[in-house]
Amino acid sequence: MNQSFNSTLLENAVSELSKLPGIGRKTALRLALHLLRRDENEATSLGESIIKMRQNISYCTRCHNISEDEICPICNDSRRDSSTVCVVENIKDVITIESTHQHHGLYHVLGGVISPLDGVSPSDLEIESLVKRVTDENLKEVILALSPTIEGDTTNFYIYRKLSDLPVRVTMLARGLSIGNELEYTDELTLGKSIQNRVLFSTTFPKR
Amino acid sequence: MNQSFNSTLLENAVSELSKLPGIGRKTALRLALHLLRRDENEATSLGESIIKMRQNISYCTRCHNISEDEICPICNDSRRDSSTVCVVENIKDVITIESTHQHHGLYHVLGGVISPLDGVSPSDLEIESLVKRVTDENLKEVILALSPTIEGDTTNFYIYRKLSDLPVRVTMLARGLSIGNELEYTDELTLGKSIQNRVLFSTTFPKR
Repeated sequence: MNQSFNSTLLENAVSELSKLPGIGRKTALRLALHLLRRDENEATSLGESIIKMRQNISYCTRCHNISEDEICPICNDSRRDSSTVCVVENIKDVITIESTHQHHGLYHVLGGVISPLDGVSPSDLEIESLVKRVTDENLKEVILALSPTIEGDTTNFYIYRKLSDLPVRVTMLARGLSIGNELEYTDELTLGKSIQNRVLFSTTFPKR
Repeated sequence: MNQSFNSTLLENAVSELSKLPGIGRKTALRLALHLLRRDENEATSLGESIIKMRQNISYCTRCHNISEDEICPICNDSRRDSSTVCVVENIKDVITIESTHQHHGLYHVLGGVISPLDGVSPSDLEIESLVKRVTDENLKEVILALSPTIEGDTTNFYIYRKLSDLPVRVTMLARGLSIGNELEYTDELTLGKSIQNRVLFSTTFPKR
């Protein structure tokens, strides 16, 4: 403890807040003092929303996305194409992909990517349950939507091999130029890939 | 709402977290997902510490610092010099000055500085109660420790005038070079003041 706050309650709140990622003691103190200045309801509803969220949100038993029920609203949505499953690393990626409105199928959240350095092996991820889903749910297409990193690509390849004997189409997200980026500043690997995977003009014209 | 979270509980927690200063929706979502990944106790103790802090911390009736009791631990500490009072803008400044271990007297928290632009007039601040304390507690010295800004200086001057007829010594924090700063990059006003207020060499040699 660098600074004495003359209040164990303040000290507790600051030390709990500073456990959050990216929040140090100085920021935690600023947040705590902000809450002290504001209406009591504001602090209460913040505290309660955190507790309720953690206690009541669990994971969808089918796709492992967060859910308040056993099956998440996406899996339960009969308008969605249940034969196409998009494989993502985590919940945040589900939210990101949903915000594009371009995927109309379901999801499968792996819970991470294979990373021997961080001690994450295939058995720590929801890969076996994905293989089971492909068979049980008779999936037509699995879209691999992991980050284009070494770990992501390793995981993509691992899943691809696991699914290679099954009658399912395995696709991955296109890699190429980012819309709005200057060609000059695109890295060579990405530029190279975007030349290899060039597509006919008409289909690629970006809709903005 | 830019993104759909498929969970009103997550949505609530994110919107409550994003009310905090300096925390936008993206950071709030990152914090919420972090709490979801961690042990349930962690979220519960964070939530409870915030609620308890806000509900149980009130203000010292003597110096207006935060306190869990009617009189704060600093005012209650008989080893401190109760004839010297340091006037600060807010609670954070009390913590900052305490961390220097150079002030052994009590405090008086104004709750702000005079700032007509922000609608803060002298009557919004704990200035009358300071004048009362000077008389009632027979104070020997009042140290003005407000920020060296236009508002801080205005408030310093206002308090100085209020106390000018009372038998109390009014001092203010020294202004000069910041320890560790290059002379070259010190602003002219500060450098000018530090020349005007130069002191004998022996007394200023910094203890590190």
